[in-house]
Amino acid sequence: MLFQLHFSIVILWYFYFNPLRNVGILCLVPVKFPSNNTYGGVWPKPVTYKTNSSFLVLRTSHFNFKVERYDCDIIQEAIRRYYFIIFMNVNSRSDYATSDVMDDRNKNFNKHFTGFLDVLQIHLMAPCESLPTEFMDERYELKIDADGFESSGLLIAQSVWGILRGLETFSQVIIPIKGHKYAVQLLSIMDFPRYSHRGLLVDTSRHYIPVTIILRILDAMVYSKMNVFHWHITDDQSFPFQSVSYPLLSQEGAYDRYLAIYTHLEIKRIIEYGRLRGIRVIPEFDSPGHTLSWGKGIPGFLTKCGNPEYGEYGPVDPSRESNYVILENLFKEISELFLDNYLHLGGDEVDFECWGSNQNILNFMKRNNISSFTELESFYIYKLLNITKKLNTKAVVWQEVFDNNVPLNNDTIVHVWKNEQDLDRVTKNGHKAILSSCWYLDHLSSGGDWEKFYSCNPLNFVSSFAQQQRILGGEACMWAEVVDETNIQQRIWPRACATAEILWSGISSSDSVPRLEEHVCRLKKRGVPAQPPNGPGFCPHFIL
Amino acid sequence: MLFQLHFSIVILWYFYFNPLRNVGILCLVPVKFPSNNTYGGVWPKPVTYKTNSSFLVLRTSHFNFKVERYDCDIIQEAIRRYYFIIFMNVNSRSDYATSDVMDDRNKNFNKHFTGFLDVLQIHLMAPCESLPTEFMDERYELKIDADGFESSGLLIAQSVWGILRGLETFSQVIIPIKGHKYAVQLLSIMDFPRYSHRGLLVDTSRHYIPVTIILRILDAMVYSKMNVFHWHITDDQSFPFQSVSYPLLSQEGAYDRYLAIYTHLEIKRIIEYGRLRGIRVIPEFDSPGHTLSWGKGIPGFLTKCGNPEYGEYGPVDPSRESNYVILENLFKEISELFLDNYLHLGGDEVDFECWGSNQNILNFMKRNNISSFTELESFYIYKLLNITKKLNTKAVVWQEVFDNNVPLNNDTIVHVWKNEQDLDRVTKNGHKAILSSCWYLDHLSSGGDWEKFYSCNPLNFVSSFAQQQRILGGEACMWAEVVDETNIQQRIWPRACATAEILWSGISSSDSVPRLEEHVCRLKKRGVPAQPPNGPGFCPHFIL
Repeated sequence: MLFQLHFSIVILWYFYFNPLRNVGILCLVPVKFPSNNTYGGVWPKPVTYKTNSSFLVLRTSHFNFKVERYDCDIIQEAIRRYYFIIFMNVNSRSDYATSDVMDDRNKNFNKHFTGFLDVLQIHLMAPCESLPTEFMDERYELKIDADGFESSGLLIAQSVWGILRGLETFSQVIIPIKGHKYAVQLLSIMDFPRYSHRGLLVDTSRHYIPVTIILRILDAMVYSKMNVFHWHITDDQSFPFQSVSYPLLSQEGAYDRYLAIYTHLEIKRIIEYGRLRGIRVIPEFDSPGHTLSWGKGIPGFLTKCGNPEYGEYGPVDPSRESNYVILENLFKEISELFLDNYLHLGGDEVDFECWGSNQNILNFMKRNNISSFTELESFYIYKLLNITKKLNTKAVVWQEVFDNNVPLNNDTIVHVWKNEQDLDRVTKNGHKAILSSCWYLDHLSSGGDWEKFYSCNPLNFVSSFAQQQRILGGEACMWAEVVDETNIQQRIWPRACATAEILWSGISSSDSVPRLEEHVCRLKKRGVPAQPPNGPGFCPHFIL
Repeated sequence: MLFQLHFSIVILWYFYFNPLRNVGILCLVPVKFPSNNTYGGVWPKPVTYKTNSSFLVLRTSHFNFKVERYDCDIIQEAIRRYYFIIFMNVNSRSDYATSDVMDDRNKNFNKHFTGFLDVLQIHLMAPCESLPTEFMDERYELKIDADGFESSGLLIAQSVWGILRGLETFSQVIIPIKGHKYAVQLLSIMDFPRYSHRGLLVDTSRHYIPVTIILRILDAMVYSKMNVFHWHITDDQSFPFQSVSYPLLSQEGAYDRYLAIYTHLEIKRIIEYGRLRGIRVIPEFDSPGHTLSWGKGIPGFLTKCGNPEYGEYGPVDPSRESNYVILENLFKEISELFLDNYLHLGGDEVDFECWGSNQNILNFMKRNNISSFTELESFYIYKLLNITKKLNTKAVVWQEVFDNNVPLNNDTIVHVWKNEQDLDRVTKNGHKAILSSCWYLDHLSSGGDWEKFYSCNPLNFVSSFAQQQRILGGEACMWAEVVDETNIQQRIWPRACATAEILWSGISSSDSVPRLEEHVCRLKKRGVPAQPPNGPGFCPHFIL
């Protein structure tokens, strides 16, 4: 046997064996520039990854995924996608960068050729689940082995979600070689995410983002193993959600009642697209602040400011009982449409000055012994939380809700956006938390700025193991004040990949710079307009 | 007569009559958001622009451009392009933003309907030129008039370049109205640029930019009346120019010898594309610094550093006589291929440390009584200037060449990039100058940052009228360290539009914010992925 795979269930958190760096010296590093990327490097970095320098060859005409069962739609759809991803552009010179690289790789490949890989056996150890949830198990094992000219490829997981993540890894370790063939090194990977919530927030209110672009963003999330699409669907600027209970909300509140809305069918399409890829779609209907666009469709819903300095309207009027009926009807529609167990209820940045300038609000506070505006906000949020609880929906809320001492369920997740240090207070109080403050993609600086996202590790901001366990993960946030469909993907990728790797691997890796170069080129090969991650360089796949 | 046009040859530099702002109150400002853009606003702002609120209607089926002569290819091609630009998407709801806007506009339109505009008469007063040069005359007059139901449209210019600029303006003042028709207000425009050199630098060395993207950039330049494409074609990182005299330069020095080069035919296509649009293509072959990529194809061309701290190689070796033969052959090929009277010779940021570490260089300096490295650089540049002079080519050089006291022709243009204040020294010494220091597009900040480009006015940095006359214009610079084909257009547009307007109009305008909103939406309608200029907003033309 040429190569004995030692596979260990022990989790080697801090042992990172970097196979590509090792064998690279012999064979994979190009002799000419561009010399600054890896070949077959996986993003995000797997937990354990062992390999040696022997290669198996994949032939387009022979290679097959073998599944034992045909009743699992998620797997069937996935192998179709990955067959295409792995073998597309098979005749393209683009795959080979410079021919010298290829010559080198090929020479080495000939030396270490061990056989053919004709089958990847996919073994799902439990029933086929249908919907990704906060509990989904994404662990997988991937082994490519050879014994003489007997070779084998095996992908095992306890759930379809692990199979999806393993297929993504498999697609990344395959490298093109000459003669329109593909090669893979013998390897053994055991992998799982450090955090269960690895999200991307996309704001579709400051600028409307067309559905096709949202679907492409979901595609790219999969390529970095992100699993939550946090859809910040409404805000002050526009209300693109077409509600069947309150159609005037988008008719009056969208930028355009036909061109700039999301219908139920479109939303279902996005949810289904995510479901097949193991991505949860969590919508945020932020209130009581950030709701100016709601007021256009529902007269009386917002507080009329008593002082024009604070604008004409302010947050939702918490003193009107009829508003809670509207919220109940609307959130009933929302919770039936969106399938996830969670809804994001917002609760950030409420404008107290407008409330304070409205006499009805002040009278209401007096009558109800509410002595401060934070208390008034708590009053509102508490009622909203009860509405969603009745609908069997759990809640994510921005950290202000916690900061204002609203009583929260154990299930409720507190979303920290002001300062990473706030994670400590939140988790010390026993609450589940996700982090975003250090991953605001709208904060710009010149190329290479993904490193500042990469250096932010949630574990560093809390003191005890128990607190660490309460951090479910985090989200990179693409607020859309200055992005629309022309530049949103370029702004997200590859910068959000840094967040994705920290949340999957739990630690940073020393080869992230060259590995991200390769990953960006991979994204471009797959059609994602990711911008250059570092400095000057070349990727042979052009997005035109 | 409904409307008497008073047309004056007196240049009303500081009299900006803003017709859209005026009639907008009655008819053109939407009652709903998005309320933050003009309708029919021209970018860059014309020098004089008079109008009233009467409208003529253009019918797709009736409208024609009428030219007296069919021997001018530039005009023939242009009217074909503009017919398409004006009437494309004629059936699209996208043209109307929200229907309420349309209703309003339509009501007003009905009130002020004056007749139909079926012909734009194009009157070229001089022979048809074929190639744009530094002397091109871009002045034009555009009149849309009506007398009862007799209407007339007239575009007059002394040269084809003025006709091109006038057609661009004409395409911008036409606004869509209901019923698949287009309207234009009665108007009288007399317009010309304050500066003759209004350029965009694109760096194709740090990242290779595909030809199709370069052509799209030329398209977009026209929409803001920019007229010089400064092609920073080579640099340290790569040599994408495929030379027929020295083919090894790109074979060894390009990122990829097939995928990442520009052939002669491709370059001719780009020059022709520019010619037809009144855009000069000026290539920069920067030397003696920024030439690492040259060394791969021509052994001995670069200085070998004596100290590895300064890298293996440094600038061109100025002590080898054979290098000047190579430069002469190469620049002969270049000056025959590129048709413009000017070449940009670079001359910036020369690394003296490598020169100082090489004993041959030091000996050469001693032998030739060269006492400093700036003098050595001058020695090199002086010889290079003589080579290009022999080739009948005039030179643009980066400001270091002036700073180092190289004797310069009157024709030579000094390109100021370090500090706008340096314009004063350069022009005081009698030299022609162009400015770039305040228009570096690679310097990033969040949305709305075009305003910092807009506030930079070259006139403010020199003291006398004579000096002002020596400022030919300037260039926005798109250095490509962190941009490639995925994000270069988004990074350029609309930020470079600010530079374009300052250089055309010579002063800033108070309605630039809403006018740029409209211009960005216009760019998107024409297929240019311009990013949002300011903050939240909506443009109904999506680039997917």
